[in-house]
Amino acid sequence: MTAPLLSRRDIEFYLYEVFQAEDLTSRARYSDHNRESFDAALDLAEKIAVDHFLPIRKKVDRNPPEFDGERVRLIPDIKAAYEAVAEAGLIAADQDYSMGGMQLPPVVSASATAYLTAAGSTTNGYHALTAANASLLEAHGDEEQIATWVPRLRSGEFAGTMALSEPHAGSSLSDITTKAVLQSDGSYRLYGSKIWISGGDQELSSNIVHAVLARIEGAPPGVPGISLFICPKFLLDESGQVSRRNDVHLTGLFHKMGGRGHTSTALNFGEREGAVAFLVGQPNAGLGYMFHMMNEARVMVGMMAATLALTGFQYALWYARERTQGRLPSNKNPLSAPVALIDHADVRRMLLAQKAYAEGAFSLCLFASQLVDDARTHPDSEQREWAHDLLDFLTPIVKTFPSEFGPRANDLAIQVLGGAGYTDEHPVEMMYRDNRLNPIHEGTTGIQALDLLGRKLTEKKMRGYITCVGAMEREQIKASKWESLLEMDMALGSALGHLKRATEALVSALNEENTDLALANAPVYLQLFGHVVVGWMWLRQGRAAVEALQGADLDQTEEAFYRGKLQAMNYFGRWELPQTAVWSDLLCSLDATPLEMDPDWF
Amino acid sequence: MTAPLLSRRDIEFYLYEVFQAEDLTSRARYSDHNRESFDAALDLAEKIAVDHFLPIRKKVDRNPPEFDGERVRLIPDIKAAYEAVAEAGLIAADQDYSMGGMQLPPVVSASATAYLTAAGSTTNGYHALTAANASLLEAHGDEEQIATWVPRLRSGEFAGTMALSEPHAGSSLSDITTKAVLQSDGSYRLYGSKIWISGGDQELSSNIVHAVLARIEGAPPGVPGISLFICPKFLLDESGQVSRRNDVHLTGLFHKMGGRGHTSTALNFGEREGAVAFLVGQPNAGLGYMFHMMNEARVMVGMMAATLALTGFQYALWYARERTQGRLPSNKNPLSAPVALIDHADVRRMLLAQKAYAEGAFSLCLFASQLVDDARTHPDSEQREWAHDLLDFLTPIVKTFPSEFGPRANDLAIQVLGGAGYTDEHPVEMMYRDNRLNPIHEGTTGIQALDLLGRKLTEKKMRGYITCVGAMEREQIKASKWESLLEMDMALGSALGHLKRATEALVSALNEENTDLALANAPVYLQLFGHVVVGWMWLRQGRAAVEALQGADLDQTEEAFYRGKLQAMNYFGRWELPQTAVWSDLLCSLDATPLEMDPDWF
Repeated sequence: MTAPLLSRRDIEFYLYEVFQAEDLTSRARYSDHNRESFDAALDLAEKIAVDHFLPIRKKVDRNPPEFDGERVRLIPDIKAAYEAVAEAGLIAADQDYSMGGMQLPPVVSASATAYLTAAGSTTNGYHALTAANASLLEAHGDEEQIATWVPRLRSGEFAGTMALSEPHAGSSLSDITTKAVLQSDGSYRLYGSKIWISGGDQELSSNIVHAVLARIEGAPPGVPGISLFICPKFLLDESGQVSRRNDVHLTGLFHKMGGRGHTSTALNFGEREGAVAFLVGQPNAGLGYMFHMMNEARVMVGMMAATLALTGFQYALWYARERTQGRLPSNKNPLSAPVALIDHADVRRMLLAQKAYAEGAFSLCLFASQLVDDARTHPDSEQREWAHDLLDFLTPIVKTFPSEFGPRANDLAIQVLGGAGYTDEHPVEMMYRDNRLNPIHEGTTGIQALDLLGRKLTEKKMRGYITCVGAMEREQIKASKWESLLEMDMALGSALGHLKRATEALVSALNEENTDLALANAPVYLQLFGHVVVGWMWLRQGRAAVEALQGADLDQTEEAFYRGKLQAMNYFGRWELPQTAVWSDLLCSLDATPLEMDPDWF
Repeated sequence: MTAPLLSRRDIEFYLYEVFQAEDLTSRARYSDHNRESFDAALDLAEKIAVDHFLPIRKKVDRNPPEFDGERVRLIPDIKAAYEAVAEAGLIAADQDYSMGGMQLPPVVSASATAYLTAAGSTTNGYHALTAANASLLEAHGDEEQIATWVPRLRSGEFAGTMALSEPHAGSSLSDITTKAVLQSDGSYRLYGSKIWISGGDQELSSNIVHAVLARIEGAPPGVPGISLFICPKFLLDESGQVSRRNDVHLTGLFHKMGGRGHTSTALNFGEREGAVAFLVGQPNAGLGYMFHMMNEARVMVGMMAATLALTGFQYALWYARERTQGRLPSNKNPLSAPVALIDHADVRRMLLAQKAYAEGAFSLCLFASQLVDDARTHPDSEQREWAHDLLDFLTPIVKTFPSEFGPRANDLAIQVLGGAGYTDEHPVEMMYRDNRLNPIHEGTTGIQALDLLGRKLTEKKMRGYITCVGAMEREQIKASKWESLLEMDMALGSALGHLKRATEALVSALNEENTDLALANAPVYLQLFGHVVVGWMWLRQGRAAVEALQGADLDQTEEAFYRGKLQAMNYFGRWELPQTAVWSDLLCSLDATPLEMDPDWF
């Protein structure tokens, strides 16, 4: 017996009972699909995960990439796994048939990809970024650019990156200085240094397509002077063949605590004659394009964080059932048989907390995938707009709740295993390390908090906020007819009240242009909002469970599954939501303790 | 410029302004000492830390011990550092002159040793365990055993271990099965397997003295049948020279996420003729002896966790002052110069939280060291008893608060550095990994919680609890005369009220023999109690700061230091203590959500 990567029953619950993925097949885009084809996609991803990712997971972690001054070397096993995914078409699972895709609904493709993340988040990183890069070009490139690059990215022949940060400019992209110089043929030459470029060099694909932010000579300072370029590692000849090396060079690798199979690179553009690059879209509009992309990348980060939490939980659960240790406090007989770890109340608490965090986070990310889809393919234009508004507003939460509470779930998984969890005999310590990157990349938690409170809350007359609160209140009404949801419904109502109170206080402060003070505790507001939203996701799961429990002929296993959902929902309501009162009080007081801490006082 | 290991000013504040270490020189034991000799001990430890530990810290982490099937190999640098500490006499800094010690007060020696932990917690682990082993033998061995082993342990010639866990028995020591067979010469032969033995094999010392728990043939089951043995790696000949190899063998190394220079071993005792061992004290009394020792080991774990938090905080603080990034939210001019990280409110919050956790935890551990000392050397017998009772009661808290919140401080240190903090270019990711062991070893957080709520709270008619609450209330009275402490005093009073409420509810449940339910949420009670106690430590620091601020002729730097203490105290009062209300409510409700989660429902 080994631990399952993910619970298939649980994924089916989200797809078919909570988010009604089968209904999507009535949309023209998905008319070829049905539950069988959705299940087949899950089977395929699971098989690749188990056959190609899981066997090398530990080896990848223990043998990080090396740079010999010329080339980066990865253990060859990664290439085999990379190719298996590409061959199965999973890089483009949700893309158009015309681009080599399977045209799966995002909620299904995201569920399938979760198996790859669970079995090797590091190895899957190359594909995830390639897919994001392809989507960026598809959305903002011209026809020729799309035709040249996108299909070869979608097939995995080429890989893609995002080159944003520079040595002096990480979170503050307005300060980037990489220079772009226009050439007589309409192309550009890039000169500058980029850091933290994941997959910036590797030996997996025949070419690497960098999406680079740079300033065209003479552009205005700050964000309004940033443009987006395609800059490939190898230039293509007229027939589209990979030909000569472009002037972009690896200068070093970062040695990371986790995600160790995914190269994190420092690149120099234009050390010699300048790196040949092609402008995407309009000059000086690059950051906007990148952010369009970044929002999807942020949902993807949330999904990775939630998946690592989920697979760590499944592992700890398996271990807690297998391993015996000690007796219950009420039993003083040393001759009685030891009980399973899971029989200890505190171990159950740690498992239940993991379930509440991980499944709450995972359902939120699937909901976001569903919104991505609805914003594009819902037949009703009002629904499309609603989905767009809600997704846009929720993005910092979808990125942050899983990134902050996913690692906590992994922390608890280690604690369930005890000393064993601290060693590499079990994968939970690796998940803990891997997941720690998620609150940092694609905008730190602090940046997400400023995005939510400093931008999304108040823009468009608070439309996003109103949309979101309205959606939660509608769920409350739906839940109110079930007695077994009453307690959670009230807990969520109370938390929502705390959220509204805090929102009012902060909006007042913002209106009075008390900006720095209003934004000083933005991460607390983000945390408060995240808990309310995940409470909502739990109530939604609870409603699906209660409805199912009404059904006749439920077997014991099925009944136990739904009871577990209700118990985890109540755990979230009883153990997590009450904290929102404390956070709200703090926000309403416009606490200035950190802001007023003079640097000299430290 | 590099980051300081620890703030010397801060350590002097604890020693000379909060815990009044100079007053100890009036005790006979410390009559040779004065502030100069205390400072000299700090200087000595800091110098060894900087000269011998810091330069190899990263190398030790990246080159963990290897086992070739015969021997374990460590990088040779560790031996040089090990010997430097031994030669300086720092293993026995607080021990009697007659044992080669410096007879320093524990509060001073603990402060000095903190420099070694900060510069290389892993390398210092060998000494820390050796010192604990020596104290165990000194307390419970016979005269000959003490004479044979203790001086050679205190000098570092030999090293010591604690061999408790077995493959099937980690937290549940009552289930150990290692067998001891009496020989005609009065010695024993041991047969069994032990795991997680830190320093169980190495190449640093000429011998290794294992303190082993085992059962004498025919002993009763469970805890009442456990005895304690000395079992050296090499037996001594009649002249005391290290001679033939004993039958104890390394079978493997554990590969840990952190603390990677400190070997964690699996040992076999008695694969062949049986491992020669010597009974310590009385048969069947071993666990009691070990626990006497374990309490000191638990204070030591708290100290290591607090020190890692403190040094990570100092590093993040240094980085946040050096590194510039972005602008304040109210400044929209991209041409203005970027500000230092520390100028961002959220970075200040993350630094202040680290300061509140780390300095709160560190002061608590020094207070515990002071209690260890008072229980032995206070001239007043009532005070000795009081110190003993309070230390005994506080031990699970002294172990747990630093172990749980120290890693959170390290987590925040990573976040302050951002992507850079996730790489090995900076030591904060290593500290995060190293510190993660502390909530596990020497009794997990769950075990500490059962110790507090299931044993220490109610034993001796709640004497420990009453002593502790009384001490906190006396501090409140002392603080009440200062206006600038008023808010914190009230916050602590309110938290103390929540603690009393929860205590009453839980004691009722225990009295009604509702044991499993009462103990089900024990870690929440431990967390609640820990926050109240650390709030107390902050009020005590605040009082010292306020008193100092009354002084004439304070220079700006000094004033800033004390203002920082008050701000961190208020941060703890405003951001941390209010959570105690939520935890108390949960405990008062005797919540059964985790307890009633059927394993089949997961």
